[in-house]
Amino acid sequence: MVANGAGDPVKGPQSSCSPLGVDNINPKVTNAQYAVRGEIVIRAKELEDKLHNGEKLPFDKILYCNIGNPQQLGQHPVTFYRQVLALCDYPELLENEQAKAIFPPDVIARAKKYLAAIPGGTGAYSDSRGAMVLRKDIAKGIEERDGYPCDPDNLFLTDGASQGVHAMMRMLLRDENDAILTPIPQYPLYSATLTMYGGMLLPYYLHEETGWSLDINELRSQTYKARSEGKNVRALVVINPGNPTGQILSYENQVDVVKFCKEEGIVLLADEVYQANIYRPDKTFTSFKKVLCDLKETEVTVASMMSISKGFYGECGRRGGYTELVNVNSDVQAEFYKLASINLCSNLNGQICMALVMNPPKEGEPSFELYSQERTELLASLKRRAVKLHKTLSSLQGVTCTEPEGALYAMPHIRLPQGAIEAAKKIGKAADFFYCMQLLEETGIVTVPGSGFKQEEGTYHFRTTFLVPEKETDEVAERLTKFHNSFLAKYGEPEQ
Amino acid sequence: MVANGAGDPVKGPQSSCSPLGVDNINPKVTNAQYAVRGEIVIRAKELEDKLHNGEKLPFDKILYCNIGNPQQLGQHPVTFYRQVLALCDYPELLENEQAKAIFPPDVIARAKKYLAAIPGGTGAYSDSRGAMVLRKDIAKGIEERDGYPCDPDNLFLTDGASQGVHAMMRMLLRDENDAILTPIPQYPLYSATLTMYGGMLLPYYLHEETGWSLDINELRSQTYKARSEGKNVRALVVINPGNPTGQILSYENQVDVVKFCKEEGIVLLADEVYQANIYRPDKTFTSFKKVLCDLKETEVTVASMMSISKGFYGECGRRGGYTELVNVNSDVQAEFYKLASINLCSNLNGQICMALVMNPPKEGEPSFELYSQERTELLASLKRRAVKLHKTLSSLQGVTCTEPEGALYAMPHIRLPQGAIEAAKKIGKAADFFYCMQLLEETGIVTVPGSGFKQEEGTYHFRTTFLVPEKETDEVAERLTKFHNSFLAKYGEPEQ
Repeated sequence: MVANGAGDPVKGPQSSCSPLGVDNINPKVTNAQYAVRGEIVIRAKELEDKLHNGEKLPFDKILYCNIGNPQQLGQHPVTFYRQVLALCDYPELLENEQAKAIFPPDVIARAKKYLAAIPGGTGAYSDSRGAMVLRKDIAKGIEERDGYPCDPDNLFLTDGASQGVHAMMRMLLRDENDAILTPIPQYPLYSATLTMYGGMLLPYYLHEETGWSLDINELRSQTYKARSEGKNVRALVVINPGNPTGQILSYENQVDVVKFCKEEGIVLLADEVYQANIYRPDKTFTSFKKVLCDLKETEVTVASMMSISKGFYGECGRRGGYTELVNVNSDVQAEFYKLASINLCSNLNGQICMALVMNPPKEGEPSFELYSQERTELLASLKRRAVKLHKTLSSLQGVTCTEPEGALYAMPHIRLPQGAIEAAKKIGKAADFFYCMQLLEETGIVTVPGSGFKQEEGTYHFRTTFLVPEKETDEVAERLTKFHNSFLAKYGEPEQ
Repeated sequence: MVANGAGDPVKGPQSSCSPLGVDNINPKVTNAQYAVRGEIVIRAKELEDKLHNGEKLPFDKILYCNIGNPQQLGQHPVTFYRQVLALCDYPELLENEQAKAIFPPDVIARAKKYLAAIPGGTGAYSDSRGAMVLRKDIAKGIEERDGYPCDPDNLFLTDGASQGVHAMMRMLLRDENDAILTPIPQYPLYSATLTMYGGMLLPYYLHEETGWSLDINELRSQTYKARSEGKNVRALVVINPGNPTGQILSYENQVDVVKFCKEEGIVLLADEVYQANIYRPDKTFTSFKKVLCDLKETEVTVASMMSISKGFYGECGRRGGYTELVNVNSDVQAEFYKLASINLCSNLNGQICMALVMNPPKEGEPSFELYSQERTELLASLKRRAVKLHKTLSSLQGVTCTEPEGALYAMPHIRLPQGAIEAAKKIGKAADFFYCMQLLEETGIVTVPGSGFKQEEGTYHFRTTFLVPEKETDEVAERLTKFHNSFLAKYGEPEQ
């Protein structure tokens, strides 16, 4: 550490301590936590290395169910997207006779349209908000989704939805008195960015017993309580469909959320990245933008975040996303634009994929049939896997699990034996962390302990994706059940 | 604004003010400046729209010389990169007989190698540091460049080099007493991130009269002065080759920089993104990593930043880059890894391109000849354009210009007439901003005023890339000269 007085200039070498040590870096960094890729994942990678080196373990591969990363688990990408992307990255193919036999004409037309309108194509920085031709296609998709106009100048394309969350946090949080209403359980990006940008996580608890429902009275009471403690409640995060909880908000509930934001002067951060992941025929996704428009509401500020990483497409590695700003003054938009420009622009490959997601092939176009078939199959398969996983989890002793209506996760509630709780305490860990770590060590299945998402005090959960390939789900169900039973056999029956 | 007392819970609606206004967002955001994409670029886009709408202006297109974005100005991409990228994004081509006739075997082999080693390919999140197979290829390239080992676990792949700078600033800056030695003129990413992360920019002036040279005594005196004022001098930014200044550091100078960092316990942030842009046969690029290794120096911490956006390749839109951490403790590396994991990972397309840049085709491989030819031609063309632009600028009355040795920019020193300085003052602008804005309005050439990079008080400069296509350089030289002369005719002779 460099010790500086305010006296004469200090000369000569400083202490031999590293100028960059965990004791002297920004504590907002050291304090931030991100369980989705935390200690358990690091251990999983070690085990994977052991497997690669031929070491004998109780399983022959690691199953990463910690993160919604479908293609890593073998999901096939949507062909139309990949064809357009390949042509955009290597435009010589557009002039190649052999290539013309490979790519359908609407794929070629789409690539040509984008390349003609993006100066320098995928190799050049675009407008910091994203290339206009792509924002226009996305705006069109939003208009078709909602039935209301969308101005492409309100769209900011980002490297995944996470970057939109970063930007909003950076804008909103001035100091530790600025609080953001965050659902519990939450996606750990919110707690991590709140720590990094120095704001306060103001929790509101979703009610597990009523399917992880959102209670407006809870929002109100938490807001009033925080205000009475001198906090500025700046924004409300709503994740719909829910992550890690999988519930879909009812329209009436959404109307109430908007009214609450209006009454309390609170910005709404609408995390809508799972909008294409709906598994119940009686449920539909409605964007908060549509709710605002239905209500003719012009005072409530909404930032709607979308991503190419989720849905049935799951293009995680491409890092594409957008934030739509609704009811935001032009001077604030200019600040958002400036923030984007400091990062130059998001990657063009991800930008293009975002436009393809929001403006897919239409009926009658050559690629429509294949696209439509892939979409239907992927969504049906996700649903089958959700149902199966839910059934397996619900069958375990001491476990209850809300049926996932949307998104990519199940969030079972696990009652753990006192023996396990004490064993965890001995090693300074949460009991659900202890459970998940043992699950990994014995089955190779990687999950995220509920403590990583925060949860009601004294309850334990874990989050698992339902992305294991269908041909392996039986085996995984068996391994999970076997592990759970042996865990209970080892540590005793759960308390309740 | 929400006004909260510490008394009873506040109920009912807040004031009708927007909950998100420029008056109540984070002042670190509103205070940040980024001239490379600031007001002049916004005006350029307006003018471009006018041209598209058929409006008559004194020029028929906008020439974006504000930013190193070569492909936007028509530079052809390196074929090898694009071929591998297309195959990685659409792997079906690997099995297609027609496609096999299009792609050389080493392109196919490279794509297969990467796809086999990256679970889920470009559609899946990779390790947050970047896919191991790519980090290994990059490490190999670094080893060949420096002649010293490189551990892929010290490499963090990022969405452009900017994200590495963000991460380092986030780690280093705890409060406004943490200062970072920054060259003046500087690349505005540094001033912008210093403002955003709440640190202090501690300037050290490059000496223009000796070719923008870096003076160790200046580093020392600024450090001691800052310490006497209670500041912690945490890091030193060195941009080599220089941006916006184009100079290449001598080896001896680099040794002195390393010694300075060691003596003063200061982290070195080595911005080495222009390492492939060297135009003088008597100059070579040496990485700071190599200097450290030559000196057997194990105490000085270096973060070396590299990008795919610059060099002869200029793959800006792809957003690829890496940070190599040298002499960093594993616990600090773990924090860096955690920061990366909060963003999940950088985009795979950019990651792959970074690996291709650092591990290009080798002699004897099928793609080598074309790659080598493209590389030679691109670098020769950049050099010709640098020489020509330097000649044009040096010929202007009241203008001197250091010859660019590397990078992509010229940074002429312009002596402005008193009349212009006063006219600028009247509209509340810096005089070089005034000059650059008029240059845009009259010629369509977009440049960045020296004030955007900071400069010695009372001097004026602007930065321009030399990326205008060769067939247009004569015309641009003519337009620039004509504008400069008419500017002087209008505002009077420069003072000196």
